Formats: sequence, C-alpha cells, structure tokens
Amino acid sequence: MSAVTKFRPLFDRVLVQRLVAETRTAGGVILPEAAQSKVNEGTIVAVGPGAAASNGSIVTPVVNVGEKVVLPEYGGTPLKLGGEEYTLYREAEIVGVLDA
Amino acid sequence: MSAVTKFRPLFDRVLVQRLVAETRTAGGVILPEAAQSKVNEGTIVAVGPGAAASNGSIVTPVVNVGEKVVLPEYGGTPLKLGGEEYTLYREAEIVGVLDA
Amino acid sequence: MSAVTKFRPLFDRVLVQRLVAETRTAGGVILPEAAQSKVNEGTIVAVGPGAAASNGSIVTPVVNVGEKVVLPEYGGTPLKLGGEEYTLYREAEIVGVLDA
Amino acid sequence: MSAVTKFRPLFDRVLVQRLVAETRTAGGVILPEAAQSKVNEGTIVAVGPGAAASNGSIVTPVVNVGEKVVLPEYGGTPLKLGGEEYTLYREAEIVGVLDA
Amino acid sequence: MSAVTKFRPLFDRVLVQRLVAETRTAGGVILPEAAQSKVNEGTIVAVGPGAAASNGSIVTPVVNVGEKVVLPEYGGTPLKLGGEEYTLYREAEIVGVLDA
Amino acid sequence: MSAVTKFRPLFDRVLVQRLVAETRTAGGVILPEAAQSKVNEGTIVAVGPGAAASNGSIVTPVVNVGEKVVLPEYGGTPLKLGGEEYTLYREAEIVGVLDA
Amino acid sequence: MSAVTKFRPLFDRVLVQRLVAETRTAGGVILPEAAQSKVNEGTIVAVGPGAAASNGSIVTPVVNVGEKVVLPEYGGTPLKLGGEEYTLYREAEIVGVLDA
Repeated sequence: MSAVTKFRPLFDRVLVQRLVAETRTAGGVILPEAAQSKVNEGTIVAVGPGAAASNGSIVTPVVNVGEKVVLPEYGGTPLKLGGEEYTLYREAEIVGVLDA
Repeated sequence: MSAVTKFRPLFDRVLVQRLVAETRTAGGVILPEAAQSKVNEGTIVAVGPGAAASNGSIVTPVVNVGEKVVLPEYGGTPLKLGGEEYTLYREAEIVGVLDA
Repeated sequence: MSAVTKFRPLFDRVLVQRLVAETRTAGGVILPEAAQSKVNEGTIVAVGPGAAASNGSIVTPVVNVGEKVVLPEYGGTPLKLGGEEYTLYREAEIVGVLDA
Repeated sequence: MSAVTKFRPLFDRVLVQRLVAETRTAGGVILPEAAQSKVNEGTIVAVGPGAAASNGSIVTPVVNVGEKVVLPEYGGTPLKLGGEEYTLYREAEIVGVLDA
Repeated sequence: MSAVTKFRPLFDRVLVQRLVAETRTAGGVILPEAAQSKVNEGTIVAVGPGAAASNGSIVTPVVNVGEKVVLPEYGGTPLKLGGEEYTLYREAEIVGVLDA
Repeated sequence: MSAVTKFRPLFDRVLVQRLVAETRTAGGVILPEAAQSKVNEGTIVAVGPGAAASNGSIVTPVVNVGEKVVLPEYGGTPLKLGGEEYTLYREAEIVGVLDA
Repeated sequence: MSAVTKFRPLFDRVLVQRLVAETRTAGGVILPEAAQSKVNEGTIVAVGPGAAASNGSIVTPVVNVGEKVVLPEYGGTPLKLGGEEYTLYREAEIVGVLDA
C-alpha cells in the first residue's frame, strides 16, 4: 500500500492532488514563473467520513475519489505523503466538480 | 460538453454569467469607462445541490438555471471556464429574480 | 409588467419605496436640505418567500405588500428598477407597521 | 386612531413611553439638568408578535401593554409618532416589570 | 407592597441584595476602605421566569428566592428600588449556592 | 457543615482543590520559587448539576467528587471558602482524570 | 498502572505521543537542528468519551488507541505524565489516520 492509500482523512477533510501548471509552451519553450498561470484544479485522492452537524448527526460528503474539482483561490493545507505533495481541504471549500 | 456545462457547483454555490455593461451609446459612441454604469444583473448558469442546515438536512436552492437575477453590489468569486468569465455566488447573496 | 413588478426578492428580503421628505413648506417655500427631516417611512412593494431557520424550515414573512412601515435609521441597500429608486431590507430590519 | 395606536412593532420589539424625570422639587423649584436623575422606567405602549427561535418557532412575548417596566441604563431606539417621543426596545432588553 | 416586592425580573435575570462588607473590626474600630474586603456574597430577592433556549423552550431557573449565593468578581447591574441598592445578574453568572 | 460542603456550584461549574507544589526537596532543602514547578493537578471537591444545551436539556457532568484531575495551564477562578483556597472551573476546562 | 494509563482524557480530547524526528542520518551523522524536519505524526495513546453536540447528545470519537495519525502543523497542548512528553489534541484537530 502506497503512503497516500494508507492515509484516511478525518471528518470533512478531503485530500486533493493539484493539477500542476504547464511550465512549457506547446512548442517546448520554458515559461517564466510569472507566466505560469496558477491552476485551481485537482483530483480527489481521499475523502473523510464527514463531520458532525450541530445535532451530532454525520453529514455525508458529496464528493468522490477520482473526481476532478475546481479549488478555491486560497486555503488548503499542504501535506507530504510518500514524498508526493498533496493538499488537504475541508469539503465545504471545494468549489465544484468538473464532470468528465 | 462545453467547459461550463461540465462544471457542477457544490453546496449552495450558484454560477452566474454577469450582464456586460453597454460600452457604446445607442448611436455607437464608445462610452468612457467611468460612464459605463456597473450592471448588477446576470443569468444563472448552474446551481449547486444546496448546503446542509445546522441539523444536517439539505436546504434545497430556490433559484433555477436560466433565471435573470439581481446581484449584490459586492461579493462573488470570478471563475474562468473554457475561456469565458463567470462569477460564483452563494445562493444567499443573490438579491432577487427578474421574471421574464 | 413594470420593472418593479418583475422583481422577486429572495429569502427574507423586502423591497420598500421610501416616503420622500417634504421639500417645501405648506406655503410652498423650498426647505433647505438641512431642514428637510429624513422620513423613516415607506411602503412595501415586494416581499421574499422567507429565509431558512437553522433547521432548514422556512420562516414565513409577517409583512405584506402595500403596508406602510417604519424603517430603521440606518441600513437598507439602494436598488434602481425601471429608473425608480427603491431600498432593499432584511425583514428583521423593518421596525413596525403603520396600520391605515 | 392616534399615530401610536396605528403603530404595530414587529418581531420582538416593544414600544415604551419613558417616565419623564421631575424637573422641579416638590416645592416647585426648577432642578438644574445635572440634578435631574435619569428615570429608567416607562410604560409599555405596544408589543410585537415575537421573534422566531433558531428552529423557526415564534417565541411569544411575556410583557403586556400598560405594564410599568424597568428599562436598561443604555440601549433603545428613539421613535417619534404623532409628535410624541417613544423608545423602541427588544423585549430581551427590558429588565423587569413593576407590578401595580 | 414594597418597591422590591413589586419588581418582577424578566427572563433569566436574578435580583440579589449583596452582603455588605464589615466596616468595623470586632472591637468596633472603623476599617479603612482599602482594608474592607469586597464580599462576593448576597441573598436572592427575586428570580425571573427563565429565558428561551435556541429552540424556544423556556429554561427554568435553578436558584430560589432567599438562597445565599456566591457572586462573580465582576458583572451585575446596580438597580435602586425603593431607595435600597440591589444588583441584577443573569442566572448563569451566579457562581454557586451556600446552603444553610 | 464546613464552608466548602455548604457550597453548591451552579450549572457546569466544578470546584477543585489544587495540589500544592513541593517547596522542599526530598532532603528538606527549601526550593526557590522559580524552581517550584507549577502543579496542574487537583482534587474535585464539588460538581454542579450541569448546564443547559442549546435545546434546553441539561448536560449531565461526567466528573465526580474525589477524582484526581489534570487542570489546564490557564483559566479557573480563585474562590476562598472557610479560609481555604479553591479554584472554580467550567467542567469543559478540566483536561482529564487520573484514575487511582 | 503507568502514569499515562491512569490518565483518562475528558470530552473530545485525544492524547498523542508524537513521533520524534530522526536526529542522525542513516550513516549515524548527527543532523543539525535546522535539518531535522519536524514530524507531524504520532500514535494515539488515549481517547476521551466524546463531547456533547449542541442538543446535548454525545458525539462518539472516531479515532482509536494505537492508531498512527497525521497531526496538524500547529495546535496541541503539551502534557507530561510519568516523566514522558505527550500532546493533547481535540479530536477535530487530528488530520487523518495512517493505516498499517
């Protein structure tokens, strides 16, 4: 089992692998950092069981592993697992899903 | 499927395409930026499933795709999908609906 | 349908047309701005369906279209519809009703 | 109907006519302003229907028109009706009732 | 009926008559103000009917008239009734009861 | 009945007698104040009946008189009863129990 | 019974023993402090019974003694028991579980 598959987020946390911005033009020219637009997309890698509402009932998450999602401009906590970079979000921070 | 139709907002988020202010007078004269009144109207392009109330039950949205709406003076998060500019709001921010 | 009748406020919002302060004395003399007392009264033009309470149930509004109301000293959001000036309030901001 | 009887407070608001401090001694001597103790008492003139609790149910007011009440040191919103001065409170601000 | 017995606190308010600190030693010597330790005790003189919980149900008070109570170091609102000094507390501020 | 046994804490308050730090080494040498480590332990002397949850139901306390507990680094209100020093905590502040 | 096994956390608290960062390279060379990466992992040593939701019902914890967990970058309260260093967290602070 790889490091990331061993990781189970808790409550309403969602683990996302961010899409990395293109560092080269189609023709292979290396883009300067400033020109590399920040990509607010990623793929869901793991989903927690959901957090408790104020009356104690668990709110089931609506996102699923493997879905492509649009991420907020800010927020998220970086997390390194097995040498790979991931980002942890609260489910409520995820903006929307990009259906295939 | 176009980029925007592939996008599903989450929770109580609503995707809106803002009405663009007229940049020319009826006679075709180009209006200076300052004279272009900001238009707080738009059309709903996508609606999330609703957010959980404090007891965990989902509050069904009341707005619908295609409706013309009045937008708040401030707020909203810009979102580019398929090269087009959209704005994301929480449903509660939408001021009202302009019936046809 | 006039612009204002096409407008449906959302949630607990209420659209009000403010009573305009007298700018002339009974005898027709124009009052200086400072002497024009600010009138905190208006007529309800449109009422939203109500907002959700914390358990998701909708709280039905208690005010009605056509009622004369006393408005708070501050608050309210100006809204222009069909060239006319209106003000949007949350129902909870409306101080009271002036029965006929 | 007098202006004040036409006024219906909304939600948990209560309309009070404050007791005015004595400006003369028993013997008729005019008290300087500083010596006029501020009276935190008044009579309830109108009572709203009550506000919604977090679950949407209406909390029925406990005070009644005509009751003499003790008012808080601060707070309250002045309201002029038919040329008379009144003060609007939230019911929760009213400190207590002075039974006859 | 004395002024204080005519006073009915509202909601979760409790009227207390504070125990006054000894101003003389047992032998009758007058204590300087600084040496007069502040006494955080008092007797409950009147109890409100209780305040509404978030779901609108009334939370019945647990303290009773006549009980000796320990008061918080700070807080409380002075209230003069019939020339006597009392202090108003929210029930939740009362620290504990000193059983006889 | 001693002063402390006459004291009944209210709501979710808990009365604790803090363990006093050793002021001497095992060999009897007096420790300088700085060297006296602050002890965050104590014994529960009295427990309130519990506070109301947001729906008005009482949350029964989980700690018991006589239990040894670990106290938070900060917080607590000093209370003198019958010449003895005690500390009042909200139950939620108590970190944990040290079973015998 | 060792000091730590006698300790029962209260409410939603969780006692964790943090994984200590390697201070030597594989070859045994002592790493300078700056090079010792901070390890945000630990093992759960004790779990409280859970805290009350807003309606008074207890929210049962989802983590278990012995589980390896990922800890937040910040937060946690140091606690010394029987000479050993532990850290107390609220369960909601624990980021996720690392399954064996």
